Amino acid sequence: MDYQFSDRLKDLGGNAIREIFKLLSDPRMISFAGGFPTKSILPARIIKDINDELMTSDEAQNILQYGETEGYLPLRKTICSYVQRYGLKDVELENTLIVSGGQQTIDLMCKAFLNKGDVMLVENPTYLAALHILKTYEAQAVGVDAEDDGLITEDLERKIIEYKPKMLYLVPTFSNPTGRTVSVEKRKEIARITSKYGVMVLEDDPYSELRYEGERVPSLKSVSQGDNVVFTASFSKTIAPGLRTGFAIGAPDVIRKLTIGKQATDVHTSSLSQAIVNRYLQKGLMDKRLPEIIPLYKQKKDVMMDAIRRYMPQEFVCTDAQGGLFIWGKLDKKGADTQAMFADVCRASKVAYVSGEAFFAAGQPKNYLRLNFSNATLEQLDNGINSLAQAFKHELAKLN
Amino acid sequence: MDYQFSDRLKDLGGNAIREIFKLLSDPRMISFAGGFPTKSILPARIIKDINDELMTSDEAQNILQYGETEGYLPLRKTICSYVQRYGLKDVELENTLIVSGGQQTIDLMCKAFLNKGDVMLVENPTYLAALHILKTYEAQAVGVDAEDDGLITEDLERKIIEYKPKMLYLVPTFSNPTGRTVSVEKRKEIARITSKYGVMVLEDDPYSELRYEGERVPSLKSVSQGDNVVFTASFSKTIAPGLRTGFAIGAPDVIRKLTIGKQATDVHTSSLSQAIVNRYLQKGLMDKRLPEIIPLYKQKKDVMMDAIRRYMPQEFVCTDAQGGLFIWGKLDKKGADTQAMFADVCRASKVAYVSGEAFFAAGQPKNYLRLNFSNATLEQLDNGINSLAQAFKHELAKLN
Repeated sequence: MDYQFSDRLKDLGGNAIREIFKLLSDPRMISFAGGFPTKSILPARIIKDINDELMTSDEAQNILQYGETEGYLPLRKTICSYVQRYGLKDVELENTLIVSGGQQTIDLMCKAFLNKGDVMLVENPTYLAALHILKTYEAQAVGVDAEDDGLITEDLERKIIEYKPKMLYLVPTFSNPTGRTVSVEKRKEIARITSKYGVMVLEDDPYSELRYEGERVPSLKSVSQGDNVVFTASFSKTIAPGLRTGFAIGAPDVIRKLTIGKQATDVHTSSLSQAIVNRYLQKGLMDKRLPEIIPLYKQKKDVMMDAIRRYMPQEFVCTDAQGGLFIWGKLDKKGADTQAMFADVCRASKVAYVSGEAFFAAGQPKNYLRLNFSNATLEQLDNGINSLAQAFKHELAKLN
Repeated sequence: MDYQFSDRLKDLGGNAIREIFKLLSDPRMISFAGGFPTKSILPARIIKDINDELMTSDEAQNILQYGETEGYLPLRKTICSYVQRYGLKDVELENTLIVSGGQQTIDLMCKAFLNKGDVMLVENPTYLAALHILKTYEAQAVGVDAEDDGLITEDLERKIIEYKPKMLYLVPTFSNPTGRTVSVEKRKEIARITSKYGVMVLEDDPYSELRYEGERVPSLKSVSQGDNVVFTASFSKTIAPGLRTGFAIGAPDVIRKLTIGKQATDVHTSSLSQAIVNRYLQKGLMDKRLPEIIPLYKQKKDVMMDAIRRYMPQEFVCTDAQGGLFIWGKLDKKGADTQAMFADVCRASKVAYVSGEAFFAAGQPKNYLRLNFSNATLEQLDNGINSLAQAFKHELAKLN
């Protein structure tokens, strides 16, 4: 049958990362592609114990029954105080929505604010799933230039005036893919400018708990004077991504619209996942877990950076990361195309990475790539970078 | 701030049922409103045991890690054979997608097929959430007339010719709200007509496991010759709605588009929920559970019907139900308006129902209502119908 797919999906394939995952069925493959937490430390035993408590408590059957779209009430209450770590004070129930992973907030924000043809500003480059979601709303991404401490605010204001965007999407702390963090001064300036022009901001913060050095920066929402910022974070990088549980914090009118949008898709997030996360937080386990994860991830990051310095050709230039899960690199040679060489490099090195092109809203330079260090073992990090380096040298030699 | 919401959501409030749920915080209220399973029989102990097994197995950390958008592979494999109970043979992995509740399939089908202004045909009346979802795509519902054994196929064909719809949405077994089941002959005819005109069909089947009398009818998809039917069902009514787990079965090209649509919202369904459902099915527990649920629900339905016969005014006319969770009634008196009287009736009787108007794509008669019997206790069913009957009598007397 010749299916008449909708305009929004007819030309859309899977997003670059999710498609790579499927290539990873070869067990010899080392993946630096996704943003997966280290599997061996996912807290199975703790989740067993929490679930035992929940399913033998008076609350068990409330958890298994239909719930409210806004989220499991005890978790929403817990979140109100949990978000103080992001500098968010005075958060009330009406400011909270539980989502099925932070990515759902991007979808719901687009659903609530974007008409076909509308513009969303993004840092260029940005999280590729945000660009992918935007396409499902037939909206347009416009990239704002950035430097080491974040968006260039003059370019932000210029593009707001030129494109009249409905929304700015930003990962201000340990940006995916670049690892950049927006300075406090710039956060204030971004908040001021967007509020002045009535542009919504979606502040996506999956990574700020994973800081390996430097001082914590307050969230953009917390330094904003306006009601135009929605903050979202999830427990995928800290507890377990398989639970698909995150939250959004925003003005009541906005949370209400996001809730109506969510009601029309998954009704509510798995209440079992929500109740597990709630107990996890209530027991204070996050404060035990982070001091376990952070040194491990820092070590992994250091091993990857050491291996890069040891093995990579001089044309490979990259950032170091103060936090988050990624190293952002490029092959600094004319004609280098990380997407075009992907299949050959992958086959030769048995290492997967994500080519940078899909992260760019504009310009689409072809020589970038993103490397994740949290998923592989220490041995794989060293061996993988070594193999990848040899494959890149081989490819670069072809360009001479 | 004056928010500029998108056209799709700016005028959309919460759906009628979800909004009623929030009124039910008064513990004295008896709810005949939602389609909630009986809370006391939700299988907390079994889910505890299954979760213990899962979280102490080698699979634990795979379950807690990111998964594929298509779903948890062991569950997809289990579903391939599980769906034989719906008459679906030769279902392969590529025909399956795990969703976060059956309602997500409605959303994903609309996302994959409907442009703004497109028409979706529905049985009139139909599941109100389908109409609600449709609005978020700025598409249009056109109602097809129905009789006791389902859609009037002449009206279906006429409306296909007139409106050139992309899709037909149908709950062919124990329709929500009417409880009607489409006969096998009509299923074949609906399949033939929609295939002839290239109209997609979404067959939504949350209820066919809950049959209290009569013979099981094969799914519409199973009697279809074409590739235009997508079948969806969930475990909300049989295992537990809080797990938010269901599945869709369709042609590989369609499943692929639905997967891309899902990737752009929740990435994948909670893997813990998926793994629990998988073990539940693999252990053969569904075959133990249904013989426990069915007599209980039949008894509840009988108690509600008895109470209706005993207490309701003669103007109250309703269907009996061979299966599913609902009685569909009307107040057969000029001027009766179940929505307008809702607040007064609810306050006087301490009973909630769902007014029928929101289920209609067209015509919107004001005198219908839907009553659920699975959520209340036997005592509440009798007392609740008695109170409701007195309140209706009071309202009807005002119309004289």
